[in-house]
Amino acid sequence: MKMRNPQLNENGELQHLLTIEGLPREVLTHILDTASSFVGVTEREVKKVPLLRGKSVFNLFFENSTRTRTTFEIAAKRLSADVINLNINTSSTNKGETLLDTVDNLTAMHADMFVVRHAQSGAAHLIAQHVPKHVHVINAGDGRHAHPTQGLLDAYTIRHYKKDFTALSVAIVGDVLHSRVARSLIHALTTLGTPDLRVIGPQTLLPTGVEKLGVRVFHDMNAGLRDVDVVVMLRLQNERMRGPLLPSAQEYFKYYGLTPEKLALAKPDAIVMHPGPMNRGVEIDSAVADGEQAVILPQVTFGIAVRMAVMSILAGN
Amino acid sequence: MKMRNPQLNENGELQHLLTIEGLPREVLTHILDTASSFVGVTEREVKKVPLLRGKSVFNLFFENSTRTRTTFEIAAKRLSADVINLNINTSSTNKGETLLDTVDNLTAMHADMFVVRHAQSGAAHLIAQHVPKHVHVINAGDGRHAHPTQGLLDAYTIRHYKKDFTALSVAIVGDVLHSRVARSLIHALTTLGTPDLRVIGPQTLLPTGVEKLGVRVFHDMNAGLRDVDVVVMLRLQNERMRGPLLPSAQEYFKYYGLTPEKLALAKPDAIVMHPGPMNRGVEIDSAVADGEQAVILPQVTFGIAVRMAVMSILAGN
Amino acid sequence: MKMRNPQLNENGELQHLLTIEGLPREVLTHILDTASSFVGVTEREVKKVPLLRGKSVFNLFFENSTRTRTTFEIAAKRLSADVINLNINTSSTNKGETLLDTVDNLTAMHADMFVVRHAQSGAAHLIAQHVPKHVHVINAGDGRHAHPTQGLLDAYTIRHYKKDFTALSVAIVGDVLHSRVARSLIHALTTLGTPDLRVIGPQTLLPTGVEKLGVRVFHDMNAGLRDVDVVVMLRLQNERMRGPLLPSAQEYFKYYGLTPEKLALAKPDAIVMHPGPMNRGVEIDSAVADGEQAVILPQVTFGIAVRMAVMSILAGN
Repeated sequence: MKMRNPQLNENGELQHLLTIEGLPREVLTHILDTASSFVGVTEREVKKVPLLRGKSVFNLFFENSTRTRTTFEIAAKRLSADVINLNINTSSTNKGETLLDTVDNLTAMHADMFVVRHAQSGAAHLIAQHVPKHVHVINAGDGRHAHPTQGLLDAYTIRHYKKDFTALSVAIVGDVLHSRVARSLIHALTTLGTPDLRVIGPQTLLPTGVEKLGVRVFHDMNAGLRDVDVVVMLRLQNERMRGPLLPSAQEYFKYYGLTPEKLALAKPDAIVMHPGPMNRGVEIDSAVADGEQAVILPQVTFGIAVRMAVMSILAGN
Repeated sequence: MKMRNPQLNENGELQHLLTIEGLPREVLTHILDTASSFVGVTEREVKKVPLLRGKSVFNLFFENSTRTRTTFEIAAKRLSADVINLNINTSSTNKGETLLDTVDNLTAMHADMFVVRHAQSGAAHLIAQHVPKHVHVINAGDGRHAHPTQGLLDAYTIRHYKKDFTALSVAIVGDVLHSRVARSLIHALTTLGTPDLRVIGPQTLLPTGVEKLGVRVFHDMNAGLRDVDVVVMLRLQNERMRGPLLPSAQEYFKYYGLTPEKLALAKPDAIVMHPGPMNRGVEIDSAVADGEQAVILPQVTFGIAVRMAVMSILAGN
Repeated sequence: MKMRNPQLNENGELQHLLTIEGLPREVLTHILDTASSFVGVTEREVKKVPLLRGKSVFNLFFENSTRTRTTFEIAAKRLSADVINLNINTSSTNKGETLLDTVDNLTAMHADMFVVRHAQSGAAHLIAQHVPKHVHVINAGDGRHAHPTQGLLDAYTIRHYKKDFTALSVAIVGDVLHSRVARSLIHALTTLGTPDLRVIGPQTLLPTGVEKLGVRVFHDMNAGLRDVDVVVMLRLQNERMRGPLLPSAQEYFKYYGLTPEKLALAKPDAIVMHPGPMNRGVEIDSAVADGEQAVILPQVTFGIAVRMAVMSILAGN
C-alpha cells in the first residue's frame, strides 16, 4: 500500500502546496497551464477576476519577507480575495501561544487559505496536517527545505522561453546548500523530464550527496556552463560572505560570478534567471543582469500568475 | 433627571460601544440577535455583505494586539468596508501631536468608525466625546477597564450553548483584578439576568469589593466550580507570573489551573471558555483545552459575528 | 529648443507628479478643478468611485510617515484601486538590492502607480526616469525638496476660501529652510498668480536667496502679518528645537508663535493654515489652532480630494 501524498486529496487533486517533491507531473503541468491563462489577466486594463471573492487569505509570515508577501498579496487581491497580513513576530506567539493554537484561532475566524513563511523546515506541513479539510495551505518558504511557488515560477519561465523540458540542459549556480529555491527547482525539472540538470558551486556550498537528486556536480563554472540552455544563478546570502565557508565576495565573484565571458560558454540563446534580490558584483555581473539574455524580471511577472494559479486551483478543489 | 448614557443617542440607540456597563438589556439582546444573523454569513461560500460599502473603518491601535486587530479587520472587510490599520506607536503621536489632534485629522479624512485600543482606561470614551455625531467609536480594550466586544462574544457563546441566561451558574476563574475581559462579562451577565455569578481566584488577583458587582467570591476552586454551567478561564499574564502577586506558575496551576478533575465538579454538560491566547499548563490543562467541553474556538468564530453586528448596528444608527 | 518637463507627456499632460516647480498654470488648475469634483464624493454615503478599479497602487515608503501614507491609502481605496503598502526599511534594500532593482521588481508585478516617500531629494525623479511609460510616480515628499500634493492641497484650500489667487497676500511663517511644504506652496502660488507672497522667520531658518523664488522676507512677525489674507504656519521639527539654530521652543513661540494678538494684525477674515502635525504652544497657540479662522482640518479633507484628483488624472493619461 502506498502512503498518500499529504498535498493531494482523495481524487489526486492539489489540497495544499507544500513542496514540489513528490507532486505528479500532471499536477505541475496543470498549474503551469492555469498560470498561462492568468498572464493575460495581469496585462488587462482591469486586472481582477472574481474567483476568490469573499474568501479570506491569511499571509502568515513568521519570518519577514516583504517581497514574497507582496507577490502573494497581489495575487490574492487580483483574485478578489480579502487578504489579511499577519507578521507573527510581534504577535501572540510572543505571548506563549503555540503555533497550532494560533492557526486554530485564525481557522475559527473562517480563514480559507494560509500562506505560510517560517524559518523552520516543516512548519507548513505541520499546519497542513492540522487544519480542517476546507482550508488550504501554501508554503511560501520554510527554512532550507522548500519554496514551491518559486520552483514553479522558474519552471514556468523555462517553459515560456524554451517550450520543451525534455531536451534541455539547465545549470544551477551557487549556494545550493542553503537554497530552498534550488531544491524546489531541481524537483520540478526532474519531474518535468529535464534530462541534463547540473549544479555548479564550491564544495562548501553544495550539499553532500546532491547527485542523488539526479543532478551532475561541477566545481568549475567553465565546464559546468558549457552548452546549457538555462543558467539559474542563486543569491549568495550576506551572512555566507562573512562566514567560514567562503574566502570573500571578491573571490566568489571571480570563480562563480556570472560574467558575459562565462555566459558565452552557454548556448547563444541561453537564458539567465535569478530569484532575486540580486547582489550585483557578487554572484552576477550587471552586464549580465541587465543584458539581453536575462529573464529575471519576466520571472517576477510570471510569479504573480503562478501564485494566482495555485490559489485558484486550491480554492476550486 | 437622569444623565444620558454617552453610548446611546437621543433615541436610546447605540451610538458608540465603549463599555457594557450601563447598557440596557434590550441593547445587548439586539446585538446578540443581530450577531446570530451574521453567523450564517461567515459560513457562506461568499462571506461578504455590502452593509458598510464605502465606509472607512480605522483600526486605531495605540497598543499592539494583532489578534484583536485581525478580528475587527475581518469583520469590517466582510461588511465590505475600507479598513485602514494604524499602529500609532510609530506615528505622529511621537511627533508631539495630541491624541485628539490625531483623531481630528482622521475624522477630517472622513472616517466613519474608529476601533480604538489603548493602554489607558478611558481613551475610547475621550475620543467618543470628541468626534462629530456621524462618527462611531468601538472600544477594543482600554487598560484594565473594558473590552466590550469580548464580553458580548462571551455572552453570545453562553446563550448559544445554554439558551437561557436566567437559570445559569457561571464561574470566572483567575486574574480578575487585571482583566477587562472579566469586568465586561460580569456586566453583561448581570444585565442579562444570570442569577449565580462567581469569581474564583487568589486574594491577590481579585479586586477588593468585587462583591459589589453582584458576584460571589471563592478562593477555593473546588468549592467555586461546584455545579456551574459555564467555566470562564482567564489568561494569566506572563508579567504576573514573575511578579510578587504569585508564588510561581506551577503553584498557580496546582490551585487554579483547570484540569479534568476540577472540571468534573461542574455540571456534566458545563462548557469551558477562554478569551485566548491560552497558557497551556498554567491556567488550563491541554486535556481540557482540547476536550469536548471546551468552546474556545467557537468563541472566536462568534467573535467575528458579534463585531460585524456591532459595526452594522452603529453604522445604521 | 526647450527641454521637456519630465513630469509631462508629449501632449503636455501630467505623466508624473514630482514637484510643482515648472508645472504650467493650466495643469495646476486642472488638478484643483478635478479635486473639487471629488470633494463631493468624500461626503457621499458610499464614498467610492470605480476610476482605478483593478489598478495596483504601491505606497513605497522609504521613510516612515503614517499620516501621509494614510491619506494616499484612503484616496486610492476611494478610487477602488488595490493598494499595497511597502515599508522599505525592513525589506530587500537591506539585503543589498538597489533602489532601482526594487522598483523594477514591483513594476514587473504590474504596478500602475508608485507613491514614493524618501529621505533623499530626487528619489522620486530617479524612479520616474526609470519606469516604463504606463507607470506613474507621485512624490509624497523627498528630503527637503518637494511635497507637491501638500502644496496643491494648500492651494486648493486657499482657493476654496479666498476664490481668486490674483489679489491675495499670503504669509508663510517659520522654518522655511527645512520645509518642502513651504517650497511646494511657494511654487504653486507663484504659478497661480499670487501677487504678494511673504516668508517670515528668523535668519537661521530662512534659505539664503529665498527672495529669488519671488517672495518678500520678514524677520519681524508683526510687520510680516500685516493685512495678509492667508497665514500658513510651518511645523517646527523637534530636532530643530534642540539644535544650534534656535535658542529654545519658548523663545521661538514668543517671536514666531501665532497667537490671537499677532493674528489680529492680519485681515479680519484671514485664514490660518498648518500642514500638521501641530506643536501647540511652539509654533501655534491653541486659541488660534482651535479658533474660527483656522482651516487646518478642512486642509486634511481637501487633501484626500486632491490626491484622488492627481491619481485619477495620472491614470487617465
